[in-house]
Amino acid sequence: MENTLKFAVFGAGFWANYQISAWKQVGGVELLAICDPDKEKAKNMAQKHGIPKVYTEAESLFEQEKLDFVDIISSIPSHAPLVKAAAKAGVHVICQKPMAQDYATCQSMVKACEEAGVKYFIHENFRFQTPIRECKKLMEEGKIGTAFRAKMTFCSGFPVFDNQPALAELDRFIIMDLGVHILDMSRFLFGDVEKLYCQTQKINPNIKGEDVANTLLTMKNGVNCFVEVSYASQLEQETFPQTLILIEGDKGSIRLDYNHHITLTQKGQGSQKFKADPPQYAWADPDYALIHSSVVTCNQSILDALMDRVPAETSGQDNLKTMELVFLSYESSDNNKVLFTQ
Amino acid sequence: MENTLKFAVFGAGFWANYQISAWKQVGGVELLAICDPDKEKAKNMAQKHGIPKVYTEAESLFEQEKLDFVDIISSIPSHAPLVKAAAKAGVHVICQKPMAQDYATCQSMVKACEEAGVKYFIHENFRFQTPIRECKKLMEEGKIGTAFRAKMTFCSGFPVFDNQPALAELDRFIIMDLGVHILDMSRFLFGDVEKLYCQTQKINPNIKGEDVANTLLTMKNGVNCFVEVSYASQLEQETFPQTLILIEGDKGSIRLDYNHHITLTQKGQGSQKFKADPPQYAWADPDYALIHSSVVTCNQSILDALMDRVPAETSGQDNLKTMELVFLSYESSDNNKVLFTQ
Repeated sequence: MENTLKFAVFGAGFWANYQISAWKQVGGVELLAICDPDKEKAKNMAQKHGIPKVYTEAESLFEQEKLDFVDIISSIPSHAPLVKAAAKAGVHVICQKPMAQDYATCQSMVKACEEAGVKYFIHENFRFQTPIRECKKLMEEGKIGTAFRAKMTFCSGFPVFDNQPALAELDRFIIMDLGVHILDMSRFLFGDVEKLYCQTQKINPNIKGEDVANTLLTMKNGVNCFVEVSYASQLEQETFPQTLILIEGDKGSIRLDYNHHITLTQKGQGSQKFKADPPQYAWADPDYALIHSSVVTCNQSILDALMDRVPAETSGQDNLKTMELVFLSYESSDNNKVLFTQ
Repeated sequence: MENTLKFAVFGAGFWANYQISAWKQVGGVELLAICDPDKEKAKNMAQKHGIPKVYTEAESLFEQEKLDFVDIISSIPSHAPLVKAAAKAGVHVICQKPMAQDYATCQSMVKACEEAGVKYFIHENFRFQTPIRECKKLMEEGKIGTAFRAKMTFCSGFPVFDNQPALAELDRFIIMDLGVHILDMSRFLFGDVEKLYCQTQKINPNIKGEDVANTLLTMKNGVNCFVEVSYASQLEQETFPQTLILIEGDKGSIRLDYNHHITLTQKGQGSQKFKADPPQYAWADPDYALIHSSVVTCNQSILDALMDRVPAETSGQDNLKTMELVFLSYESSDNNKVLFTQ
């Protein structure tokens, strides 16, 4: 591949704006075209970001543009057809999370890319957040000995439906949209999951799906990890979009608190406090600054893998394991059962 | 019954000392005798508290003393024979938690007391803690609307085995000894449990039983309550013997934090902070002051029920439901199953 990779974006919604800004931040890529069935939205986004070409149909785009990769930032049901179209066109693919609405479709997407010999990435950015990386580093340095339990908390009352009204229409909401991130981070921090139990709840009467999920994961290494996600929370401190984490090991603990404060406590040695602030970008929405900065690192990681500098961290193949947790969580909640991963 | 109730104590260990002090605090009772197979311990306790008679065998005590009730503060395996001996003697019974080591034995104890027509109480004091009562009051006043989820946290590194070395020898440790309290408080706050899933862990290599338990309860009213208990925690703030609680409702939340700080947050109205400090008693062990003060309120509640002033709050019959949760938790963890209450 050439040094500057040429790509196109599918989807011109709320999130595409930040993802495109993050690509500019990363550099080394050239955005040739944007495609959205809503021509007006696509044109506006093209104008805002100086994108040369606008399409409303994927087929025409793939026919006319010579691309190294595509970045799919569109609605969930459109992911599978677009990923498969890209594979057919022999173009590497980045796809927004969640990969697809059911596990069989996810598998078919991974298979299509494998068979076409194109690289396939899921844009799983949460694990790239600065404080999350710092927590992992402290664990890997052996600071708390062997981890045995953890809590990962994303409980908020932030009005996500104002920016993304389509979320209120999803039959499956909070695990598909948000839980998928936290479940992926649990894998990033503690490795793969052996079994899980989940109970979802629907509190907000004005949305279609569930807005609370309580999940107890047991990892293959024995760590018990409680994942709690809620958009129905009324707490003293609104913490959106931060994930708060407590990791307990046999020699200490790591607590990631509000505003990226990390407390490392070591047996017999007291506590130390750090701050793990993310980089700030002028283009980021202040409400989402932490997350938007992780899009930059996520894009950089994917670009490095596209350039064969490093192995892919958030490959489609890897993300199947995260999606399995999403679907198992719903199944567990529906049937009141403890479910084991494959 | 006369105005001053006459009673005897079984067990002269660490905990009996505080329970006897709490009875003196409550008043209206007269402690006639203490019984412990270890005569030296019994004599020391009798001397310390001015108890007229010392026994090493329950049978002799029941033969020779004319009692209104007994307070059993002895080892777990001795609870059932002592409760049944008291029932046979026609004496009301208070028994320390946990009631017994298996559910069938618990049932037989309740039955024995019912058949003998004696009142039977479990000394379940945790629910009487000042801050716990305050949380319940705020909920009952409708301050947070309808509760939908909660967390109850007792995670500590306090060296309980120093004061109570027998705890290190229990096959079943943390749920039997500590979890039983937190599970009982969950019932006090949210009503009865529909189903649960639990995962226990053994971290401390120097004890026989498990020292961590992670339990997700779903109450009959739909509240999901995560109960986490640990004696293997190394946290910045050692919080022993406090239970930290977060209760989320559709109109707000109640957070019980370290040192009895309560934060009430109400939708659109911000937060208010209270302190719910327990009474202080000179005889209490400073490490256990919160808990020892709850022994006074618990004893008072039982005395009121003995005097027919109020219905029993922590009757043996009621406590069967708490013990069911204890045994279901172990079974759930052993078999990786979600279990429903009877």
